[in-house]
Amino acid sequence: MLRESIYHRPKNEFAYVYDEKTIHIRLKSKKGDVQKALLIHGDPYDWEDGNWVSDKIEMGITGSDELFDYWLVAIQPPNRRLRYGFELSGEEEVLFYTEKGFYSDMPTDDIAHYFCFPFLHYNDAFRAPEWVKNTVWYQIFPERFANGNPDINPEGTLEWNSTEPTPTNFFGGDFEGILQNLDYLKELGISGIYFTPIFKAYSNHKYDTIDYYEIDPQFGDKETFKRLVEECHNKDIRVMLDAVFNHSGYYFQPFQDVLENGADSEYKDWFHLHELPVSADPAPNYDTFAYEASMPKLNTQHPDVKKYLIDAGTYWVREFNIDGWRLDVANEVDHQFWREFRTAVKSVRDDIYILGEIWHDASPWLQGDQFDAVMNYPFTTGAISFFGTNSQSASEFSNVIQRMLHMYPENVTEVAFNLLGSHDTPRILNIADGNKERVKLLFAFQLSFSGSPCIYYGDEIALLGDTDPGCRKCMPWDEEEEDLDMLEHVKKLLSLRKDIDVFGNNGRYAFLQANDENGTLVILKEFENQRLLALFNNLEEETTIYLPEDFHGQEMTDLWTNDVLEPSEEGIIVPGLNFKFLLINDN
Amino acid sequence: MLRESIYHRPKNEFAYVYDEKTIHIRLKSKKGDVQKALLIHGDPYDWEDGNWVSDKIEMGITGSDELFDYWLVAIQPPNRRLRYGFELSGEEEVLFYTEKGFYSDMPTDDIAHYFCFPFLHYNDAFRAPEWVKNTVWYQIFPERFANGNPDINPEGTLEWNSTEPTPTNFFGGDFEGILQNLDYLKELGISGIYFTPIFKAYSNHKYDTIDYYEIDPQFGDKETFKRLVEECHNKDIRVMLDAVFNHSGYYFQPFQDVLENGADSEYKDWFHLHELPVSADPAPNYDTFAYEASMPKLNTQHPDVKKYLIDAGTYWVREFNIDGWRLDVANEVDHQFWREFRTAVKSVRDDIYILGEIWHDASPWLQGDQFDAVMNYPFTTGAISFFGTNSQSASEFSNVIQRMLHMYPENVTEVAFNLLGSHDTPRILNIADGNKERVKLLFAFQLSFSGSPCIYYGDEIALLGDTDPGCRKCMPWDEEEEDLDMLEHVKKLLSLRKDIDVFGNNGRYAFLQANDENGTLVILKEFENQRLLALFNNLEEETTIYLPEDFHGQEMTDLWTNDVLEPSEEGIIVPGLNFKFLLINDN
Repeated sequence: MLRESIYHRPKNEFAYVYDEKTIHIRLKSKKGDVQKALLIHGDPYDWEDGNWVSDKIEMGITGSDELFDYWLVAIQPPNRRLRYGFELSGEEEVLFYTEKGFYSDMPTDDIAHYFCFPFLHYNDAFRAPEWVKNTVWYQIFPERFANGNPDINPEGTLEWNSTEPTPTNFFGGDFEGILQNLDYLKELGISGIYFTPIFKAYSNHKYDTIDYYEIDPQFGDKETFKRLVEECHNKDIRVMLDAVFNHSGYYFQPFQDVLENGADSEYKDWFHLHELPVSADPAPNYDTFAYEASMPKLNTQHPDVKKYLIDAGTYWVREFNIDGWRLDVANEVDHQFWREFRTAVKSVRDDIYILGEIWHDASPWLQGDQFDAVMNYPFTTGAISFFGTNSQSASEFSNVIQRMLHMYPENVTEVAFNLLGSHDTPRILNIADGNKERVKLLFAFQLSFSGSPCIYYGDEIALLGDTDPGCRKCMPWDEEEEDLDMLEHVKKLLSLRKDIDVFGNNGRYAFLQANDENGTLVILKEFENQRLLALFNNLEEETTIYLPEDFHGQEMTDLWTNDVLEPSEEGIIVPGLNFKFLLINDN
Repeated sequence: MLRESIYHRPKNEFAYVYDEKTIHIRLKSKKGDVQKALLIHGDPYDWEDGNWVSDKIEMGITGSDELFDYWLVAIQPPNRRLRYGFELSGEEEVLFYTEKGFYSDMPTDDIAHYFCFPFLHYNDAFRAPEWVKNTVWYQIFPERFANGNPDINPEGTLEWNSTEPTPTNFFGGDFEGILQNLDYLKELGISGIYFTPIFKAYSNHKYDTIDYYEIDPQFGDKETFKRLVEECHNKDIRVMLDAVFNHSGYYFQPFQDVLENGADSEYKDWFHLHELPVSADPAPNYDTFAYEASMPKLNTQHPDVKKYLIDAGTYWVREFNIDGWRLDVANEVDHQFWREFRTAVKSVRDDIYILGEIWHDASPWLQGDQFDAVMNYPFTTGAISFFGTNSQSASEFSNVIQRMLHMYPENVTEVAFNLLGSHDTPRILNIADGNKERVKLLFAFQLSFSGSPCIYYGDEIALLGDTDPGCRKCMPWDEEEEDLDMLEHVKKLLSLRKDIDVFGNNGRYAFLQANDENGTLVILKEFENQRLLALFNNLEEETTIYLPEDFHGQEMTDLWTNDVLEPSEEGIIVPGLNFKFLLINDN
């Protein structure tokens, strides 16, 4: 066995509390190298005649990528205490893998050899609110969703959808517009709305906050917002707001005070100033988001800044009963700030959802003490590289997804915020070069995947738009500009997600086939007594997919057509750029 | 190159804040496999013509164990933001290693390929108090150090050192006894005392607390303790107390209340009761430490318990000015409790030292938000298996120490609490089967190593004693029972540690040789303009150690004899079970 490939370390994704009684233990090893893996486990205080008393339980492979097999076992230690190691059998040898390294004989004289999960404390577990895993999000960019109240249009508002969006133009989208279209969203089948920022700000995107306690007047007032939240809740739709705590806007009063009063400003430590007087010319002499002079970075370690922002965080939960916070540029803010933020908002309501904007590996933020999820862009990149642009082979795609599923604990992936695009990316139809069948495949994959998916407003009617500002176009509300076929497609997927347990829920997720010859995937999802086979054909040619033998002769229902079929060795024909969802009910 | 062996993941020990401006990036790869490693690095927001702007800097190997080479580079990103990847050159290929995997060409089109250290926040860094790395600890078991005030002897106290210790006998050690012998400790050269528990308790070891706010009357009163702390501080000796927060004692009033009042007790949620009435017969029907009925596990998630214990934590800092807390069974208490404990005690005094009792890999507690150090038993096991019992070869020992040095960030190992033994282990002289030369080697290794070493009372005079209770013998205070030669040995090592910067300080630590033939080690320590060669001969025969050529002809001082020598190809003779410290002053 290749010892250099074998890896385990508590805690993180390799050993974690799964639920009140269960610990998950994982291991990775070179693909195909280990034939059998046993977990050696016991209570650290159980001894007999100078030897540690332990037991063994078999681990299973939950997936593989290009290089590694991933092993898992769930275990419920009776006293909540666990010492453990691994017995690994390869073709020619048996190895014992412990915290101290590898042994050919199992060490029993000293507990110090073994890995330790000292105690199962459920309060330390990663625990997102229960409702999240059954939520489908819809992202609204409020300036562009619908203009319901022209009286509050900002100065210079253009006629709705009369021209392409630019970084600075306004179309007057507002809360009334959203209220008027809640039925549309309900019929679509979503169950949560993620609003990009609604607080008073200078720009059309509102990521340059002026006042964290005020709603931007172009959207409406607090009363209207309260009504919007209530109407959403009446329709079982959750509401998530977007908080920009990494930086403020240029016109944030404390920053203006620093500009005016320099060293005398009581706010001078609220920012990271390099010198005084503060100036943005030729380049900002203060820390900013990226190099944006209009976005001075906040000093989130300053007690007053912390108090101001965290109070804002609890204010909107307490006063307006919102259900979640999406946190902008969350990775550039200190961990300590997020720990205090979490404690504060969860103490107002313990089922608030906290979603961080992190595009990369976010393990340090997903330990249970900070976020409930991050925007899962590794999912996005994987999905669009395969279904969107066909720039990845089926096996490469399978590797990407497998790797992603094993980089976090299972309770993290179960609530991952899986998106295909956002206000920060080109629209999926543009990425797919206008090919609507590819967009349909993307939705079919996303909406049958685990986690908590999010649809970017307008993608469900096949809106076009290049990267920012192109992707922030007005929702047309004009059937001529809407692809109603795409809309039906998304609705159908969402109703399957709602009605068929295994379709929407988590549970085991395995790639049975990833065929580079004909660009097909066969995915098996298992949940309670249901199994779902998802077949994807990612190339333009019709092809035949041959299911593994154990599925031959099994009765299954095609969820798209309601046909009942029994696959045989003759295989199943899947048209080009198409898919099949086949449901097996086991009893 | 063996891709399965290459590992990096932020943050933990592979990417961490080293100081206010510096991030350390580490990588591991199969031993001998990678010839050259470059860090590709840049600001995530620096782009030119659609390509990410990056730079490269060479990494160095800081050590190797049996399987891996460990690479490190220190980097100071100008905007405190860092995206990075690795360019690895092997014999036959060049590989680019990123968050998304391996590439043969360097990807520049999308920042998403790269690993991310989003922002250097110094408040998130692991930061132990500055004074710790220059502290040498002395562990006192107060019942057995010295009896200075017979008036407060507990009932049944035996004559000092009149018999062997048992789990239940008392000899009357107390604070007066310690006060009377502070000069002894000062002359020995230590600079901190770690006291095992002093709070009111039932047993002689006091790990079964009755009252966290009272001193056990057998040791003295609060006034005497205050005087003890003051006298220690007058002599520049730090004081660390031992807190047992995982469990209380059986006679802790809240537990007694539960015994008496059962379901009516206001304290019934302070513990983990399985059923009522509470009973210890035949086995406790409540969670305990190990299976000890006399040590009921505390529910550290209960707000009142948290408040009671954390207030006790701050009380002794605030009222008695202690310098540190050692936390018993720290690994079985929840992380959230420790985070709140840290915040509370550090807000009273920010240079309090927090030391957890964790015997195994303690990475999850050493992220900066919980402990400053743990009792480094992996160091203990390594050192005694080589120098103490010769049950490990020189190369195995070198592997163990190298691995240990690379399992945590450098700022963690710089303050590691490195002990040879404690009240929980057999004394080192017993482990070495009575061989005092081996004990001298152990001290020579420990006291020339990095971190913050601790001497268990009596080991410096070669006290004997098997595991608990044998290792808790009375300090004899009788020259006939003290090994004064061992005492001089330890004093000499401590004075070198104090006087010679490179001897005591951290800095680079490398094994130049680990020779299994003759059981010798050559270790190089480097600090500022000094280099120290530490030569150890772990076998009984005299042997010759041949230094690498670049040391030939270099003038160096033997710190033990003050001789000046210039090593040549003829080598240096080291007697059996002996050592040499050779100092080179570079200018």
